Amino acid sequence: MVQQLPLDVIARLRAIDHAVSPEQARDSWALLTPFHEKIGYQAPRIERDLSYGEHPRQRLDVHSLDTHRVGDSPAPGLAPVLVFVHGGGFVGGDKHTPGTPRYDLVGAWAVRHGLVGVTMTHRLAPEFGWPAGAQDVAAAIAWLRSNIADHGGDPDRIVVAGNSAGAVHVADYIAGHGGTSLDGTSFDGTSFDGVRGAALLSGIYQLRSAQPGEPGYAYYGASPGEETSTLTGLLESSIPLLFSVAERDGPAFHQAAAGVVSAWLARHGTMPDLVWVDGHNHMSTIGSLSIDEAALGVPLARFIERNTGVTG
Amino acid sequence: MVQQLPLDVIARLRAIDHAVSPEQARDSWALLTPFHEKIGYQAPRIERDLSYGEHPRQRLDVHSLDTHRVGDSPAPGLAPVLVFVHGGGFVGGDKHTPGTPRYDLVGAWAVRHGLVGVTMTHRLAPEFGWPAGAQDVAAAIAWLRSNIADHGGDPDRIVVAGNSAGAVHVADYIAGHGGTSLDGTSFDGTSFDGVRGAALLSGIYQLRSAQPGEPGYAYYGASPGEETSTLTGLLESSIPLLFSVAERDGPAFHQAAAGVVSAWLARHGTMPDLVWVDGHNHMSTIGSLSIDEAALGVPLARFIERNTGVTG
Repeated sequence: MVQQLPLDVIARLRAIDHAVSPEQARDSWALLTPFHEKIGYQAPRIERDLSYGEHPRQRLDVHSLDTHRVGDSPAPGLAPVLVFVHGGGFVGGDKHTPGTPRYDLVGAWAVRHGLVGVTMTHRLAPEFGWPAGAQDVAAAIAWLRSNIADHGGDPDRIVVAGNSAGAVHVADYIAGHGGTSLDGTSFDGTSFDGVRGAALLSGIYQLRSAQPGEPGYAYYGASPGEETSTLTGLLESSIPLLFSVAERDGPAFHQAAAGVVSAWLARHGTMPDLVWVDGHNHMSTIGSLSIDEAALGVPLARFIERNTGVTG
Repeated sequence: MVQQLPLDVIARLRAIDHAVSPEQARDSWALLTPFHEKIGYQAPRIERDLSYGEHPRQRLDVHSLDTHRVGDSPAPGLAPVLVFVHGGGFVGGDKHTPGTPRYDLVGAWAVRHGLVGVTMTHRLAPEFGWPAGAQDVAAAIAWLRSNIADHGGDPDRIVVAGNSAGAVHVADYIAGHGGTSLDGTSFDGTSFDGVRGAALLSGIYQLRSAQPGEPGYAYYGASPGEETSTLTGLLESSIPLLFSVAERDGPAFHQAAAGVVSAWLARHGTMPDLVWVDGHNHMSTIGSLSIDEAALGVPLARFIERNTGVTG
C-alpha cells in the first residue's frame, strides 16, 4: 500500500488559507512533522556543507547510505542523484533547519528510493539578483558532475528538482540562464546534458511585474524583462520535465501551470507531464514526500526512474 | 513498492503508433496481458449479466469478495463501489471478453482496493445515437442505487469511471444528458448525488464535426450540436471529477485535456485534477491498473478514497 496521510490531516491541510505566508508554513509543517518524525527524515549518512563555490550560501549536503561510497571513480554501483533546490521567495530558505524535517526529508526520501540525495542552498536577493539562482544551480551541478562519484552518486544520472523559488531557479538553469558557471566553465545553449531531468514543483515561469514586498521584487526588480521568462526555454529544452501544482497553491501558481499547458500544447501538440498534488498547499507539497506518497512521491519517483534507469 | 511495468515494456508501449486502431489494441494488450495473467484479473466473486434495463446490452457484472455480501440493507460493512464504462468508439466494446483481462481486470483492481467493482455495457451506435450512452449510465447507476447493497456495495458511495467513448458517456451523464432514466425515474439538473465522483479517462468533451468512419459519426451524426458538449456541464457540476490523458493518446485527446484545463482555470481559477498517464497509450491506460499502478492506479485509488472515505 502506498503511504498516505489520514483523511482528517488532508482535510486540515485543505482548511489552511492558500496564501503563501509564515502562518501557512507554520501550520502546514505542524501537521506534517509528526509523520516525518515517525517515519524518520534523516538518511543513514549526511555529509554537510560541502562547498560548490566561494560564497557561504554555496553549500550542499549529500544524503546517502554508507554503502553508496564506493570509491573515487564511476562504477556500476553508483546510484542516480536527486538534487533539491529549496524555495523561500528568493530572499530566504535553507537546505537544512536543524531539529526539523526541512529539507533533510528530501534526502531521506531519495535514499529510500535508491538514490543519492543532495540538498543545496543558493545566494539570496536582494544582495544577489537574477540570474544568481540559476548560476548557483549550474555551479552546483558542475561541482556534482566532478565530485559526486566520491559520495556514491553517478555524475551521468542527475535529476534536479526545485520548489517554488527553487523551481524558478531550476527553470532558469534549464532555459540556459545560468550562463557561465562560477568556476568559469562555459555552458552553451545546447549542452544541457548535465541533468537527465528536471522537476519543477509549484513554479512561476513568466513574471512581468512585481511590487515591493512581493517575492519577485527583490530578485527581479519592479519590471522583469522578457529575458527572465523561462517558458520558451523550457519548451525548447530536450531535458525531460515534470511540472507540479498543488490543489491549494494560490491562483498565480495555477495560472502558471495552465500557461505551461497551453504553451506546451501549441509547441508540442501534447499535454506536459504535470502532477496535480491533491490536497496539499504551497508549503506541504514537498513535505508530502515519504508520508503521503500518492500526492507527489509516486509520480516523482516514476519520473526519476524513467529518466535514470536502463530502458532496454 | 508500487507495482510498475519494467522499463523495456514501457519503451515498447511507447513505440506503438498513437493512432487508435485494432493494431494498437492488439499490440498493447499483447504486451500487458502476461502481467495481468501473473497477478490475476478476476475477483473472487463475479456475478455476470445482471440486467439494468430491457435491452440485451443493458447488463452489468458485479465483482466482489464473498464477504462483501452482507445482506439486503445498507450496513457499515458495505464497500464503496466503482462502476466502469468501457470504450469502443461508440459502436463496439464490451464489459467482458472471455479469456482476456478486458475488463474483469477493473473489477479485480477495485476489489484489491477494498471496493465492489461493476463493469457495464451500454447500447451502441448507429442503432442508438446520442444520448443513449448517458441514458444507460444513468439507468445503471439508478439500478445500483437500488440493488448494489444486496451485493455488498454501498449505494451512497458510488464512483463512476469511463474510458474513451465510455468517458464521453460518463461526462454526458454528469452534464445531465442522461435525462430521464429508462425505468422512468426523472433526473433533474441539480440532483446528481447519485455518485460521489467521476473519473474521465481519455475523453473528448466537445465534438463539432465528424466524418463517416470517424468514431463520433455513427453516434452524433456529421454535425454534433452545441447541446452535445459536456464541457459546460462538467464545469458547473458539484461532483468531484478526475481527468486523465495518456502520454501516447493522440492529438485530439491532448487537445481535449488542454481545453479542460483552460476552461477550468477560467471558471474556477485553478487547475483541474488531471492525471498525465506516463508511458501509456489510448488502449493501455486502463490496462495499467494493478500491473503499473504508478501510471493511473495510485491517483485513481486516491481520488476514490478521498471521495468515499470518512473525512473526519
